[in-house]
Amino acid sequence: MGAAGKAAGPLSHRRRWYPDVVQQVAPPGTFDLGPGYLDPGLLPVDLLRGAYADALAEFGSAALSYGPNSGALPLRALLADRLGPPCTPDHIMVTSGTSHALHLIATILFRRHDVVLVEQVGYDLGRAILADSGLRLRAVEMDDSGMVPEALERALGAAGDTPAFVYLNPTFHNPTGLLVPSGRRRELLAVAAAYGVPVVEDDAYAEIGLTRSGMPDSMAALSGYRGVIRLGSFSKSLAPGLRLGWLAADPETVARIQAHHVFDSGGSPNHLASLAVTTLLATGAYDRHLTWLRSALRDRRDALAAALSANLPERFVFDRPAGGFFLWVTADGERDERGLVTAARNADVRVLAGGRFGRPARPSVRLAYSFNSPPRLTAAAHRLAAAWKSTERRLPCS
Amino acid sequence: MGAAGKAAGPLSHRRRWYPDVVQQVAPPGTFDLGPGYLDPGLLPVDLLRGAYADALAEFGSAALSYGPNSGALPLRALLADRLGPPCTPDHIMVTSGTSHALHLIATILFRRHDVVLVEQVGYDLGRAILADSGLRLRAVEMDDSGMVPEALERALGAAGDTPAFVYLNPTFHNPTGLLVPSGRRRELLAVAAAYGVPVVEDDAYAEIGLTRSGMPDSMAALSGYRGVIRLGSFSKSLAPGLRLGWLAADPETVARIQAHHVFDSGGSPNHLASLAVTTLLATGAYDRHLTWLRSALRDRRDALAAALSANLPERFVFDRPAGGFFLWVTADGERDERGLVTAARNADVRVLAGGRFGRPARPSVRLAYSFNSPPRLTAAAHRLAAAWKSTERRLPCS
Repeated sequence: MGAAGKAAGPLSHRRRWYPDVVQQVAPPGTFDLGPGYLDPGLLPVDLLRGAYADALAEFGSAALSYGPNSGALPLRALLADRLGPPCTPDHIMVTSGTSHALHLIATILFRRHDVVLVEQVGYDLGRAILADSGLRLRAVEMDDSGMVPEALERALGAAGDTPAFVYLNPTFHNPTGLLVPSGRRRELLAVAAAYGVPVVEDDAYAEIGLTRSGMPDSMAALSGYRGVIRLGSFSKSLAPGLRLGWLAADPETVARIQAHHVFDSGGSPNHLASLAVTTLLATGAYDRHLTWLRSALRDRRDALAAALSANLPERFVFDRPAGGFFLWVTADGERDERGLVTAARNADVRVLAGGRFGRPARPSVRLAYSFNSPPRLTAAAHRLAAAWKSTERRLPCS
Repeated sequence: MGAAGKAAGPLSHRRRWYPDVVQQVAPPGTFDLGPGYLDPGLLPVDLLRGAYADALAEFGSAALSYGPNSGALPLRALLADRLGPPCTPDHIMVTSGTSHALHLIATILFRRHDVVLVEQVGYDLGRAILADSGLRLRAVEMDDSGMVPEALERALGAAGDTPAFVYLNPTFHNPTGLLVPSGRRRELLAVAAAYGVPVVEDDAYAEIGLTRSGMPDSMAALSGYRGVIRLGSFSKSLAPGLRLGWLAADPETVARIQAHHVFDSGGSPNHLASLAVTTLLATGAYDRHLTWLRSALRDRRDALAAALSANLPERFVFDRPAGGFFLWVTADGERDERGLVTAARNADVRVLAGGRFGRPARPSVRLAYSFNSPPRLTAAAHRLAAAWKSTERRLPCS
């Protein structure tokens, strides 16, 4: 392991948080507001050690054999209960996370060169999974409530190839943090249904609500689980290293996916992990963890938002998101986003340019509050404010 | 859970071995020689409980975050050491088992309608993964040493679409148990190399050698890790519920696969499981387990082989395999295999017809000795012998 890996750096990494073991490690000294990761201190090591031991005690050797193609029934039954009627275990398939689910959908349900409609800005790696699978992406205009129904209708009715599906991320949208309201969800569903085109609802952040107010129903629930494939994950609410998530859809769609012989051959994706999480759901430990995690993330969101509000120049604007991992900061008067990202990097803060996620209407950057402690987020906000004070576009002296 | 699930049946299932939790459960009273599964009693529950605890102690929160796209370096380094030079960690990618690896290869490296050359008989579900991914399969003749090089050459040189790759299972071949000798491996590699067509070497059973004599080098090693993608698995040597395996290939091919954004988004497939197995490899516990497992499987193979030899009519022939999970029994004078399978089923023994795996030269059935204890295998052999005494083809009385 290299010297950069051995240096603990300013992050609260505890043990072995090296580039050889984890996917991304910020250079020492950097405040990394880049990745949509949970802070190492928020990953429940002891809880999961117990969960694996409990699963092996409860299910014994059955936890180590091949699981049913669509996943162990105890987990699917608990998830169906959480999702509520009309959802049944037959509506659910266990996956190795939403990334895996997107790859399965792209390769099993659809074909290379199929067209997917995506949001004007959206989860960069999710759409890259679809593109790497040979699908062709077309962006559809958004406003402050999400994808614009009239724009979706124009895209669906346009001459040429009929789009195969619509990929949406309506709940604590990555990167903007937007929570698409119920009315807009219904409008989008009505347009998609009128054209007979399914919706893939990526709800990876759905469990990370940070306000006490009510949540809109999922698009899957609003549709009665017809014409929508909803994706859920334990990567944001427990730990991404589990590689555990699920998809919920009408039973015929679930049956089509789980009939692929990759599951006949290998069984349920990630069987032991699925039973470990089953024990956490069954005992209520998962919900207790979620309560704690939301509180910790609320503190992080509020620390970043407060320090930015107090210090950023007026041309910077952001909404405090109701959930998820991200603040989306837009700035008027910037030449482009690269100046913001570069100035941040020169102040040892890593942020992501909005252009990475599509074509934002105004220069924007995404700041993750999930990966650093509140004091570090406050410090990072001060650095950003100082760095960005002088980036405003200087008009030519004419 | 249904009544059939609750009845423990004659299998040595311990806890919760129900159809809701595992993929396949034999009806109560059946001796199941069907699936290539490890007997529940051979699945190391305590060993793996310790391995997960050790991985979480050793790697802490890093075991719960996103792993590097191609897998955590500690595991890839240990695997590279086991495979020997010229293999390096850059030659290896961690997968969720060989099934997952086949799906990745089929969808990332190849395209729908590509042609794959497969053995005359071979792993049914593996080739079904390729077929479900849109590939077209063409069978190539085998003899007692494996695929016939001259037949491979004819298939590669035939008019029409050039085959995209050759799918082989040279070590303890499923279903025949065949161990392709070194000379034949080299001949097949030379033919494939002459046509510039890669070989996918499915070596899921490579760790399950049951004799003291030496093993031939893998085709990947013989090729110097050029033009061969070798697949390995911990499903047969530890537990399939882990969903953990690997592929080894030239670094450029590994780089192509791990560059798919499904890994940028989700990280290493099955990160925590990979670090649990890392601890078992690093401490030697894996090799101690393998020694014990091989001994247990040797007892099973020998119990089944001895009871069949002593009791089957002379027209039944089989080789005692040098490794793997299966006995391949061929029979002269049978009308077809269905008669054998039906007679076995009527005696409450489940066996698989050879036709499931391709086009055997003679009527054949596959018997797994991995899934039952030695006394139960002996009892099953007696039942089979009795059931098959009277199935011989009766010539028309003309």
